[in-house]
Amino acid sequence: MSQVNLRIDQIHEAIERQDDVTLNNLISEVSASETARLIEASTPENRMVIWGCLDVQKRAGVLKSVHGKVRQYLIDNTPQNALLDSLFLLQPDELADIDDDLPATVINAMIAAMDELRKARYNRVKHYPNNTAGGLMDADATAVRADVSILSVLRYLRILRKKEDEMPRQLDSLMVVDRTNKLLGVLPLSEIVSLPTDILVADILEQNFQAIPVDASQEHVARIFQDCDLLSAPVVDHNYRLLGRITIDDVVDVIQQQADNKMMRSAGLDTNTDMFSPIISSAYKRGYWLGINLITAFLAAWVIGLFEAVIEQLIALAVLMPVVASMGGVAGSQTLTIVTRGIALNQIGRKNLAQLIFHEASVVFLNGLVWAVAVAVIAFYWFGDPILGMVFGVALLIVLITGVIGGIFIPLVLQRMSIDPAVAGSVVLTTFTDAIGFFSFLGLAAIFI
Amino acid sequence: MSQVNLRIDQIHEAIERQDDVTLNNLISEVSASETARLIEASTPENRMVIWGCLDVQKRAGVLKSVHGKVRQYLIDNTPQNALLDSLFLLQPDELADIDDDLPATVINAMIAAMDELRKARYNRVKHYPNNTAGGLMDADATAVRADVSILSVLRYLRILRKKEDEMPRQLDSLMVVDRTNKLLGVLPLSEIVSLPTDILVADILEQNFQAIPVDASQEHVARIFQDCDLLSAPVVDHNYRLLGRITIDDVVDVIQQQADNKMMRSAGLDTNTDMFSPIISSAYKRGYWLGINLITAFLAAWVIGLFEAVIEQLIALAVLMPVVASMGGVAGSQTLTIVTRGIALNQIGRKNLAQLIFHEASVVFLNGLVWAVAVAVIAFYWFGDPILGMVFGVALLIVLITGVIGGIFIPLVLQRMSIDPAVAGSVVLTTFTDAIGFFSFLGLAAIFI
Repeated sequence: MSQVNLRIDQIHEAIERQDDVTLNNLISEVSASETARLIEASTPENRMVIWGCLDVQKRAGVLKSVHGKVRQYLIDNTPQNALLDSLFLLQPDELADIDDDLPATVINAMIAAMDELRKARYNRVKHYPNNTAGGLMDADATAVRADVSILSVLRYLRILRKKEDEMPRQLDSLMVVDRTNKLLGVLPLSEIVSLPTDILVADILEQNFQAIPVDASQEHVARIFQDCDLLSAPVVDHNYRLLGRITIDDVVDVIQQQADNKMMRSAGLDTNTDMFSPIISSAYKRGYWLGINLITAFLAAWVIGLFEAVIEQLIALAVLMPVVASMGGVAGSQTLTIVTRGIALNQIGRKNLAQLIFHEASVVFLNGLVWAVAVAVIAFYWFGDPILGMVFGVALLIVLITGVIGGIFIPLVLQRMSIDPAVAGSVVLTTFTDAIGFFSFLGLAAIFI
Repeated sequence: MSQVNLRIDQIHEAIERQDDVTLNNLISEVSASETARLIEASTPENRMVIWGCLDVQKRAGVLKSVHGKVRQYLIDNTPQNALLDSLFLLQPDELADIDDDLPATVINAMIAAMDELRKARYNRVKHYPNNTAGGLMDADATAVRADVSILSVLRYLRILRKKEDEMPRQLDSLMVVDRTNKLLGVLPLSEIVSLPTDILVADILEQNFQAIPVDASQEHVARIFQDCDLLSAPVVDHNYRLLGRITIDDVVDVIQQQADNKMMRSAGLDTNTDMFSPIISSAYKRGYWLGINLITAFLAAWVIGLFEAVIEQLIALAVLMPVVASMGGVAGSQTLTIVTRGIALNQIGRKNLAQLIFHEASVVFLNGLVWAVAVAVIAFYWFGDPILGMVFGVALLIVLITGVIGGIFIPLVLQRMSIDPAVAGSVVLTTFTDAIGFFSFLGLAAIFI
């Protein structure tokens, strides 16, 4: 297979040959987050070989971006001191993201070794749940006062730099606050470097900016960043006091993770699914999902069972019935996808819902007419039975339209029950269209044949 | 339904009542990109009412972020002069993204009205395909030379600002070039504002940075930004000469769009699907997908048709056969999701593929044993036939394992055929598991019953 990834193969071959020189060269060429993907794609033994080749800096990057279960494995298999060396390189907000996976002894040793400033930042972020603005923020927002000149700001920043030896990462703007730390505005660095130095901050600060409440959900934060094309945004408490700053790189991670989660969870997989987790525990988790689907499948079987006598009279029904059910599922899932996306984008209201139902039903009705005639003709030629063909066509039309109705209402009802329609919608819809499909086809047959 | 979106309802109600004051108030509260979502979620008539309430600034924002078909509709229904007013507010790279939807007369009028600098930037971006780094970049990278001091840089920027009256949006760093415009490094603004002014640029420029080749795909650009946590990156030609700069807000759009595309296309929907597109054209597009699925469904029906005689002897087979097929689909789709994600993340190589097959097959074999016994018992109690139970259980085990094998190889083969496995994988897999499911269950029954 030429499509498979060459570098991964080279690395795994080097491990097999125990060729440490090649291995080190290959690994030094990939970024920390690519290394994280590489480690995820390796068996537990190979993971530790790759991990053993990494310097503290790269290990820090890997710990940050590797998925949950694999991170836990790496942490459990690394001596405490080596672990601490890498953890020291992470930002306080990054540490707060991963420290659930760290043993208490490591956390304590890490906190004990922090200087006061770092400890304060770490504790401030830890205070908030990971999936809120507070959990995403960095508590090192550099702030200045409004009544000073640009020259004073430049002086202040130079002193700060001398003292701390580095600036907050990805600093694109300063926060402007009053003496009670209340946020007044934002001052982009591009203004500071391009305007005359005697201008006062108060005269140029952007007041038309987005401040994010500390308890906003991470989904909400992602939406604000995208709506306003932000690079960073201040985080405030309920009194509008500045608490920290969120940078867009953390938001990108949130967006990526959301898309990933939906994909995994809609297949009944854990978000943290590890490609090479122990077989027994994988089997247990997957078995759960198979069990749910077994129940829904038996539901459809039960519907068929109601019509055993009809099928006995005409075996062709058994041959054709999966076609009806599957077409309903397909038509429904197209509508389901549109509505699920509409819900995610806040696009569905009571008024346009009625219009949407009309639109979708019309689309599928037109299609239904065409395909109903087509399948009726096919069934007639296949089994030589005109009534069978007619029943087949009408059942198809019914299941297409109910599939679309299901595609609209199932996600709305699920959302009302606080179940993510992107995750559960498709299972519920398939159960629904299968049942309707078998019932309408076999039911019509019972009446007319 | 309490879950539906209140603001959308209020806006649609205001339109219905022709209450312009309320309508204007409501719309003034939402951002341009939210307004774009709102317009997408409205019928064509309501779209024009909302569009009519927007000022030039907001119209520019909407044009930028609305989906293709709806953008076309807005453009077609807006007088040329009003359109031009909004287009002038867009950046050259944003213009280049949307100008495929503009009539030639508007494009010509727009270019004629551009000043030289803007025209040059626009043409430079237009030169490259939309889905490459060249199409994403802004051609206004502010560059300085390496042999000057920070003080000179600050002076230069102040002169530039005076001349152009604004700085490039989202400026977080300057590019450093030699006299032939060859890229030497990057200089973050946070360094400029915090270091002593007598330091030379050459001494502090970041040489360890990511430059993006102008012909890199947008997917590749997105990966680099995420791997390196960048806010912006220089774009260079093959001689490493600076051409422009990509900012992360454009990359976020790419990431979001990719996730959206996959979701839409895996349901056979156009990426630009418009909720309220004309019914005939919607019906035509959806009909195509229904037709493909009809063919795959008839394939499964044909497999069942091979065994009509067996079903005639034992109708219970017709009742239970959808259970077998559906369980194979579920088990396969879990593996398919893991492998598809692995392919997207470059995680699948020849070496770990074998290990992955072993892992997945073991997981599903363990599950298969448990569920095979369960369904055998259920079938025995339901139909009182021990042989039927045994056949059912064994067929389930077979379809689960072949489902997993399909889940591994189908995405790999599709990718080799340059078909996105995230889009087509699930249709192919379902066809495969349905056929295998019916064949193994009915085939075993033909032998043993």
